[in-house]
Parts: sequence; C-alpha cells; structure tokens
Amino acid sequence: MIAVLKPSATREQIENLTRWLEGRGLSVHISKGEFYTVVGLIGDISQIDTELLGSLEMIDSVKRISEPFKSANRKFHPDDSVIDVSGLKIGGTNFQIIAGPCSVESPEQILTIARSIRASGATILRGGAFKPRTSPYDFQGMRADGIELLVEAKKQTGMPIITEIMNANHLPMFEQVDIIQVGARNMQNFELLKELGMIRKPVLLKRGLANTLLELLMSAEYIMAGGNHEVILCERGIRTFETYTRNTLDLLSVPLLRELSHLPVIVDPSHASGMARLVQPMAMAAAAAGAHGLMIEVHNDPPNALCDGAQSLTPGQFSEMSEKVKRIREAIAS
Amino acid sequence: MIAVLKPSATREQIENLTRWLEGRGLSVHISKGEFYTVVGLIGDISQIDTELLGSLEMIDSVKRISEPFKSANRKFHPDDSVIDVSGLKIGGTNFQIIAGPCSVESPEQILTIARSIRASGATILRGGAFKPRTSPYDFQGMRADGIELLVEAKKQTGMPIITEIMNANHLPMFEQVDIIQVGARNMQNFELLKELGMIRKPVLLKRGLANTLLELLMSAEYIMAGGNHEVILCERGIRTFETYTRNTLDLLSVPLLRELSHLPVIVDPSHASGMARLVQPMAMAAAAAGAHGLMIEVHNDPPNALCDGAQSLTPGQFSEMSEKVKRIREAIAS
Amino acid sequence: MIAVLKPSATREQIENLTRWLEGRGLSVHISKGEFYTVVGLIGDISQIDTELLGSLEMIDSVKRISEPFKSANRKFHPDDSVIDVSGLKIGGTNFQIIAGPCSVESPEQILTIARSIRASGATILRGGAFKPRTSPYDFQGMRADGIELLVEAKKQTGMPIITEIMNANHLPMFEQVDIIQVGARNMQNFELLKELGMIRKPVLLKRGLANTLLELLMSAEYIMAGGNHEVILCERGIRTFETYTRNTLDLLSVPLLRELSHLPVIVDPSHASGMARLVQPMAMAAAAAGAHGLMIEVHNDPPNALCDGAQSLTPGQFSEMSEKVKRIREAIAS
Amino acid sequence: MIAVLKPSATREQIENLTRWLEGRGLSVHISKGEFYTVVGLIGDISQIDTELLGSLEMIDSVKRISEPFKSANRKFHPDDSVIDVSGLKIGGTNFQIIAGPCSVESPEQILTIARSIRASGATILRGGAFKPRTSPYDFQGMRADGIELLVEAKKQTGMPIITEIMNANHLPMFEQVDIIQVGARNMQNFELLKELGMIRKPVLLKRGLANTLLELLMSAEYIMAGGNHEVILCERGIRTFETYTRNTLDLLSVPLLRELSHLPVIVDPSHASGMARLVQPMAMAAAAAGAHGLMIEVHNDPPNALCDGAQSLTPGQFSEMSEKVKRIREAIAS
Repeated sequence: MIAVLKPSATREQIENLTRWLEGRGLSVHISKGEFYTVVGLIGDISQIDTELLGSLEMIDSVKRISEPFKSANRKFHPDDSVIDVSGLKIGGTNFQIIAGPCSVESPEQILTIARSIRASGATILRGGAFKPRTSPYDFQGMRADGIELLVEAKKQTGMPIITEIMNANHLPMFEQVDIIQVGARNMQNFELLKELGMIRKPVLLKRGLANTLLELLMSAEYIMAGGNHEVILCERGIRTFETYTRNTLDLLSVPLLRELSHLPVIVDPSHASGMARLVQPMAMAAAAAGAHGLMIEVHNDPPNALCDGAQSLTPGQFSEMSEKVKRIREAIAS
Repeated sequence: MIAVLKPSATREQIENLTRWLEGRGLSVHISKGEFYTVVGLIGDISQIDTELLGSLEMIDSVKRISEPFKSANRKFHPDDSVIDVSGLKIGGTNFQIIAGPCSVESPEQILTIARSIRASGATILRGGAFKPRTSPYDFQGMRADGIELLVEAKKQTGMPIITEIMNANHLPMFEQVDIIQVGARNMQNFELLKELGMIRKPVLLKRGLANTLLELLMSAEYIMAGGNHEVILCERGIRTFETYTRNTLDLLSVPLLRELSHLPVIVDPSHASGMARLVQPMAMAAAAAGAHGLMIEVHNDPPNALCDGAQSLTPGQFSEMSEKVKRIREAIAS
Repeated sequence: MIAVLKPSATREQIENLTRWLEGRGLSVHISKGEFYTVVGLIGDISQIDTELLGSLEMIDSVKRISEPFKSANRKFHPDDSVIDVSGLKIGGTNFQIIAGPCSVESPEQILTIARSIRASGATILRGGAFKPRTSPYDFQGMRADGIELLVEAKKQTGMPIITEIMNANHLPMFEQVDIIQVGARNMQNFELLKELGMIRKPVLLKRGLANTLLELLMSAEYIMAGGNHEVILCERGIRTFETYTRNTLDLLSVPLLRELSHLPVIVDPSHASGMARLVQPMAMAAAAAGAHGLMIEVHNDPPNALCDGAQSLTPGQFSEMSEKVKRIREAIAS
Repeated sequence: MIAVLKPSATREQIENLTRWLEGRGLSVHISKGEFYTVVGLIGDISQIDTELLGSLEMIDSVKRISEPFKSANRKFHPDDSVIDVSGLKIGGTNFQIIAGPCSVESPEQILTIARSIRASGATILRGGAFKPRTSPYDFQGMRADGIELLVEAKKQTGMPIITEIMNANHLPMFEQVDIIQVGARNMQNFELLKELGMIRKPVLLKRGLANTLLELLMSAEYIMAGGNHEVILCERGIRTFETYTRNTLDLLSVPLLRELSHLPVIVDPSHASGMARLVQPMAMAAAAAGAHGLMIEVHNDPPNALCDGAQSLTPGQFSEMSEKVKRIREAIAS
C-alpha cells in the first residue's frame, strides 16, 4: 500500500505518521519527490484502518498496490475455475442455462416447467422457495415445502437444482440443493457469507442493486476465505435513474469480472429488465459478451392471455431464446 | 388498488383480467372513460402479485390507493411515537445525542469517552462490537467482549447503550443492550428484521446506501409486523456520484419521514461525510431540519496529531458541536 | 391525461379543480369510484403545468395516457425510419460502423485512419474537431481546422463524415459535414436542439450521462418538432456507482428504444468502458442486442507500446472487432 | 501530477513512457520503491491527455497533486469572495434571499410578488423568462417580454433582478439584469460558459443533476478563466433513487464548497424537494449548514385552494420561513 502525502505535510507530521505506522508493525519506505512525498507500507496492512489513514489531514490519497481480493483474483489463479455440479461443468468454455419459475408453487407446476425447459436447452432448474420481499405482507414463498418440491423435480428429471437462501439457520434444509443462491439484498450480509464459506457446496452470488464489482468480488472473497472456493458470480442488473426498465443490466461486468477473477460469470436478464420481451435480446447480448451462462425465469401457467408483458418467459419463448443464444455461441466460437 | 388500462386494451382482455382477479377473491370495479379504463380492486390485495399485474401488456400502471406500510404510517397513528429507554425519551419533542467510538477497543477507551461525552451533552453511548467490513481480512470487532465492555461502561456511567447486530443468533449477547442497531447493509436482511420483530427492545434501523424512504419504512414495517413497535429510523447518507464525500446526507428525509411516519428520526452525520470537520455543520443542519436526535462518532485516542481529518470528533470537538446544536434547537423552539 | 385524486379530496376541492381546469379550456370528465376518483382531461393539455397539478395536495398522481413524444413515437410511425446519407442507409435492417479518432490531429492522421478502417468495415468516418472538456485548460480540439481536415478525408476516401457541434453559431462550418453529433453534455441544451431542428441534415443525439430514455426521446422530439426528422439515437453509457469502468453501457436501451421509437439506435462502446480491451465484447453484445450500428474510436499513432489500455482501438484491433461483429450479425439474421 | 505504475511495468515500458512524456516537454522524475514505481511529472501538464495516460496498461493510477481548478480555488484566494450587486453584498458574512415566481407571467404578478417578498426579507428578485423544459410542447417562458417585466419590477421596487440564460445570443437582452443564472442542464454547456466569461456581470451557476462538486467548480473555472470572477455557486439538489422527492438536496456541499473555494454558495430548496411544505425545513437546514443565501420560489396567485402541495411558497409561507431562517442565522452567529 502507498500513501501520497499532501504538499502541505510537515516534517513533524511525517515523523509522527511513520512512528504510528511502525508501532503497528509495518515497514515504512518514504520517497520524497520535488513536489510530492510517497509513503510505501510493507507488511501486514490488515492491521491498519485504511479509511482512517486516508482521512488524515496530511494525506492526499491511499492506494493499494495489490487488489484486496486474493482467492477470487485471477492473478493468483490464472486459469478459469470450472465448478462441477454432478458432472455438469460451470465456467471455462462451458455454457449453462439455469431456468425455472420465480416461485415454486405446486408439484405439477415445477415438474411441468422442468421437463419443458430441459427439452429446450436448460441444464439446471431454478425455483424460489424462500422469497425476499420488500413488504412483510407479501407472499414469502413455500419455504421448506418449496425445497421439497424442487428436490422431487430433481429426482424426476435428473436436473441439478438451485434455490435462494436467506438465513444460515436454514442450511440443513438445503442438503439436497446443488447450488445455493445468495440474492442481491444479501450480497453484503457478511454473517451469511461466512457461514456459506464453511460448507462445501457451490454458491451463486448475485450482485447487489447498488454495489460495485469490487464489492461483489470482496463478498465472493468472504465465502472463499472460509474455504469454499466454488463461487459463481451473477450480474442481475443495478439500480440507475432509468424508469422504463426495473434495473440496468451491466454487461460490461462480464468481460471485466472475467479479467479480474477466475470465477464463472452468469447473467440474469429476467430481473434486470422486468419484461419478458426484453429477455431474449439481453440473453443474446450476454452470450456475445462472453458470459458462462444464463439464469432465466420461465413459467408455464401465465394468467391466460394476460401475461405477455410479465418478466417470465413462456416455455415457447424460452425455447426460441435458447435457440438464438446457441447461434450466438456458435458464431463467437468459430 | 387501481389499475389504469392502456387505451389498446380489448373487451376480451378486460373480461379475462376481471375473471382472473375475481378468481383471487377480489371485487372488481370498472370505470370506463372516453379515453381510459380504470379498474378498482377491493379486498385482500396481498393475494395479488402487483409486479406481475403491472407488467401485463394491457396495463398502463398500477397504483396503490393506500401506502403499503401500516404500523409505521402516521395516518393510523397521528401522534409521534415516543420510545422510552430507561426513562430517557426518544421522539416527540425530545432530542437525544447518541455518541461514542466507532469500535469498542478497551475498558479505558470506552469509559474515558463515555464520561467525556456525557459531560458535554451525549445521553446514549454507542460503540461497535460487531463490525460489518467489506473485506473478510479487515478487523471484525471485539464481538462478545466488546458488548461486555459496553455493559460495564453503562454500569459505571448510567448511560443506556446501543450497538449493532449482524446475526439474529447473537441476540442472547444483547440482553443488556438498550437499543439494537441494524446497519445500512442489513436494512433489507428480512430474516434478521423478522427476528427483531419478535423481541421487545428498541431497534435503530439505518437506511441502506441506495434505498428509498419507502423501502426504509417497509423494513421498519417488517419489525413492527412482528409486534415490536419501538423502531427508530436513522438517515446516514446515501450513495451518489459525489466523490469528495463518502456519502450524501439526505436531510430532506427528516421532514419527509416525520410526515409519513410517527417513528422518531435520527441523523448520523459522521458516516455520511467521512470527515470530522463536516460533522458539526451537518449536525446543526440536521437539528434545524427537525431531527429527533443525532448519532456521532467520538474517539479519545486519535493517533496523535494525525487524525484531524478522520471521521470521528475528539471530545473537545464533540463538546463544541453539542453546544452549537443546542443553540439551533433553542432557536427553532422559540 | 388523467389525475387520480386522493381519498381525502373533498367535494369542494374537486369543484375548485374542475373550475380551474375548465378555465384553461379543458373538458373535465370525473369518474367517482368507491375508493377513488379519477379526473380525465380532454383537450390541449400543453396549457397545463402538469408538475404543478401533480403537486397539489388533493392529487395522488397524474398520468399521461399518451406518451409525451409524438414525432419520435413508433405508435404514429410503425415502420423503422431509414436515414439516407449519400446513399448509405442508417436504420431498418442496415448496420453501419462509424469509426475514427477521438480528435482530428493532422491530415496524415485522419487520412491514414480513414483508409485503414474503410478497408476493414467502417462506413462512416468520425473525428472530433470541437471537444467538450471538463476543464477550460484542456485541449479544446482543432475546431474549424479539424473540420477542414475531415472534409478533405471525405473527398479522398468517399466516406461520409460525422463530427460534434457545441454551438449553433458554428453551423456554417458544418456545411460539408454529413451527420452532426450532439454530445452527452448537450443532450438537454434545448436551444441547440431547436436550431438543429431548423436544418435538414441528420443529427446523431447521444444520451446524457444521467438521463433516462424518455428524456433522450424528448430531446429527439425537440429536433423533430422543428421539422428535421433525421435523428439517430446513440447509447454511450450512463453514470453509475461502478468505478472500474468509466460508465455503464445500458444495452437494454437498444431493444427498448427500438420498441418505443422508429428512429435508428447506435451504440458507442468506446466511451462507456474507457478501455480498448472491453470495446470488442461490448460491440458484439450491442450487435446481438439489435443495434443499428456502432461508433468506435480508432487511432493509428498510439504512443508506441504504451497505449494498450487506452480507449481507442488500433486499426488491427478494429479489424478483428469488425469481423466478430459481422459473425454475430449473420448469426442473428439466419 | 504523479503516475503510480503497476508492479508489472517493465523497464522497457518505463523508458518508453519517459521518452513519450519528455517528448511533450515535461520533466520526468522516477522514484522506484521496492513494490512500486512512482513517476512525477513537472511542467505544463495541460499538454497531456491524462485520461489516455491513466488508461495505459502499465499505469495503476494518475493523481493530480494540485487541484485542476485555479481561479475558484481557496488555496490561491484564502478570503471569501464578496460580490457587489448594486451595493448588495453576496458572500462572506452576508446572507441574501433571492425570491420570486418560477415564471414571470404578467406585470401585476411580478410586481405584487416583488413588493410582498421585499417586505418580508427577500433582497433579490428572481423570475423565469426563458424556461428550460424537457418537452418542446411545454410553455417556454415569456422570453424577452418576461425580462422587460422583471426590469420594470426592478425600477419600481429597487430590487436587483436575476433570471436564467439559455443561449449566449440572448445576452443583449440581459443588459439590465443584475445576475445571470445558468441552469442545471447547462452547467456543462461549455460554449455558454465561455461567453459568460467574457462579460462583466455576476453569474449564478447551478449544479447539474448528476454532477460532482469538482465538475461544478470546473464549470465555474470556465467562466473565471475568461476573466469574469463574479461567480455564485448554487446547490439545487441532485438526482438519486429517492422517489418521494424530486431531487436530493446535498447540504454537505455547502461546507465543502466553502472549504474548496472562496466563491459564495447559495442553496435552492424549492427545486430539490418539489413540495412547498419541505422548503422551510430545508431553508433552515441550509442556513445552519453555512450557506451564503437562499433562492426560493414564491407565487401570489396559486390556483385558489388547490396549490398547497406545490413547490412555490405563498407570500405568507415565505414570510414565516424568512423569520425562522433569521433566527437560525442569529443562533449560529452568537
């Protein structure tokens, strides 16, 4: 880490600073230019509150030389991580489509959808059992019963399943779940992340609504620091001022996350747009941008003719999307 | 709730919609104007996924007639809520200053600060024991030991104490804590909020970094829906594009939250600005805007002369701020 | 337009409102439901300050039934607009690549780049003559001389040219320019837009850094309201909290703008990412999302080996990108 | 300026960089630490495209040692600037209230308001003649006629007047105007700013909706670089995700702008909140935060009982606000 001092820093201030840093076990290396002084810190900088340091009057800015994420960093792990889920591979040159309903509703619903999407290209089944809702008065999901239905669908179809966790105390219910999802609102629920670091099961980590990519990687680091290295990153749209769409899908995150990290990067275009008719073009764009896979909402029982505009695709729309994405994948592979 | 239909909605679509809504137990009241059709829904609308409804092709927009928060709503509770903490009153015409160090570090530190700030106007002692940190490699707080030191300081000074919770499983450790704080990153940790609804102890709920006031009130509603009505709202700055300051303090939230809700509204100017020298003017502005109190970081052992720019006030600066805020309070009371 | 009244609106208030609206020449149609009252306004609503109306105590919300943009609206112009630039067609099923240097620097520079990019797929030559710079002390472009060099390059290569205008008084210098560009910072410079509505020459309008798509369309409307219907919309990234990239490219805007409007939609991936190595994946994603073309920065004389990370592509990188985009285009056409 | 190089920078890259920088007339001073290399640049750095420099592969970051604004910088002008408008002083220890209607509508309207607000504390009369409107179909102001009415009101009341300019070609109409206002949407209309640098008349510069304080100061610098040093900065709210209010008033900007610059800082609470009942608490908060004055919308002819919620204060509400602000001013002065 280096600290750039303000031109106004006095010799006494610099000496005080040096003493203070050395008192915390760091080596201090001072380089005095004509117009600036740069202080290099060598040693275990986790002993230092960098925010406090940066806010000192005499300091212009503090810069980390090395990125603060280690386990997730491509520099220390040049090859793509490939995560194996019952033989299915996520990451590297593989491309997986996770699909399924927003909420698990009934045995028929989840099974019908699972069979339909498996036939048209989906490889992993999703379905919400615990639902994070802004209002305490809204439907909170089927909870344990929902997970049981997912597990049943897995047995019938052979598809691995993924569902969202909201509370580490629920972990025992997730034993048969193949991938555990952390939702956008829990991306910085550090206590939950720590617990997920203790288990040995892939975690799909969604980017928070107003979080940077560095913050997403630091949250992945929380899980990996516990020993669980099977983390899948997921871009699902961020909050911006745009009002036509619910969120803004940040596809620049795909090549950037792949450059910064070795972890697989998945894109969820359903939540970002909030409109079924925008899911297909964004799924195609995500594939063209180099994503390792997609996460798509599909429902089979829309309220009759009413749901054209909803966020979920019908099985027919999913099948068409899947075909188009395949063509894009072939075009960029050639 | 009402739904405004698009001019393009056909008679058949409207009939389908009506049938679907009635099938969910709602009365439907249709008002057809020359250029628009408005559908009024009467009954238990929690059965309806309003997002799905709003995304239907035929629907222009969905509007709730009543706000989605009930217990926190001033309409159903016209008088200010006043929360009693061991005889100290928060809300109404009262004004309380919560102060203390960012992190509890040692018995001497917390006790020295507590005595100093009590002498200059603070009424409640704060101190971080569990620290939410972006990086897993940063100091995570003294945890249980930190709470013990706070409790000891409470015994010695008689000041009620407040500290942050990050995991509902830690609740047993908070028995002697007077007010439980929920941090910005956990504002939408709905599982934690539900658990805090089960207890009978005041909760100070901080606004999330990119959350709206409605979302803050809905999170308060989560706690209140469980039966715990002692919620204190706290504005602590939101994320914007500004880079000189860490966050942007949204003081419009003070009169607005007081209008929408009967709950007390506290302002934390320390975290928003990230610079001690900006805390005093913002504390004064918050008092002028009508806040019920302040939450201020104070430390007694800054790294010698180094910390002028840091976020925490020295006891001397706190005392000066406290005096200025008092004058503002008198000016607006007169 | 309709106004939804609050349940608390009194009969007297409604009568006052009706009188006031009728006094402004509108027909008022009131529909009173059990729980709500909706007021429909028929006539020339441009006489009404809708913001004032919406802010009245008694009014819950004001909704336009029709979108506020007319000339740019696909509803009134179902077919794609195709703009003809010296025989080159922009919009519809056509795909054009605008490319060239950030700034015009010398006759050799612009001519070398023009020839190189024309050979590898670019169809329109761009180059900055007037440069909007945050600082008055930064290079402001070659101005009139830059335009002359562009015109010379056009003569030599036959490529139509596009360059940015910052001041309507400069219009006489743009006589030989084929497409006039309005930059992000001038998207709501309404006086400039009005002047561009008076001329008969295509205008490429860039989205502002924090503007919504509706605001972009309203700015297009300013130009079209003057009679100039040849407007090209350009997504170039918006400001978000992300710090790794300069801006966030909003590719959802592509299918959405194409749905809302008949105007061509171009994507500029160079400015959004600020990094050459991210331009290619974003160009591919933009093509996959359905853009009508791209705008790409290319330079031929990077500071030797120094510029790998800069925003501009080398001619070689441009050629590779162009080839990949072509494959994507073929994949989605098939 | 200094550039911090990445640890991966090779000796050859550093030599290339040095040669390239020296070729642009700069002295280069290299300081090689154990883990980092810092390159100091001495000389006229306006010859360097710092964005290009920062985007080079080998460079971690580029830091200016000195702030990019000179004329507006308090470092080079330690005392507050005090601007004299016909004997009225803006800045320093003075406090001025600019008030008046959103739009000038008629001789009676502007004169009635002017007399009323002058009696209750306003010192400068505002009124919109040219109105920036998102839609070309909305009322664009009385334009030249509006300015004439303002000038007439000035003659009758003796109050200096301020009104907004949108086009430098209109400057001749502003001869009798005392202060020229640049609106938020034109904050980065650099051509307009340059023209206003050529005249000798105070300019009130509003912060753009998504602009940082540095960008605001750089825009002030554009005016000052032309020789016009009479610039007044105005905070009027920025765009955030909050939806209850139109904008978020950033009062942290007040102490921060006063620290960074010697220019007067005015706050406009009317536009930020969009609701009259929030104007008074925000005006009080702005005064408490140390603003040099306020800009307040007042109208005298609200549509009868309809306008309680509108953005403008009635003369009676203005008088009450003015009194409360006065008390806050006295409290902080004592």
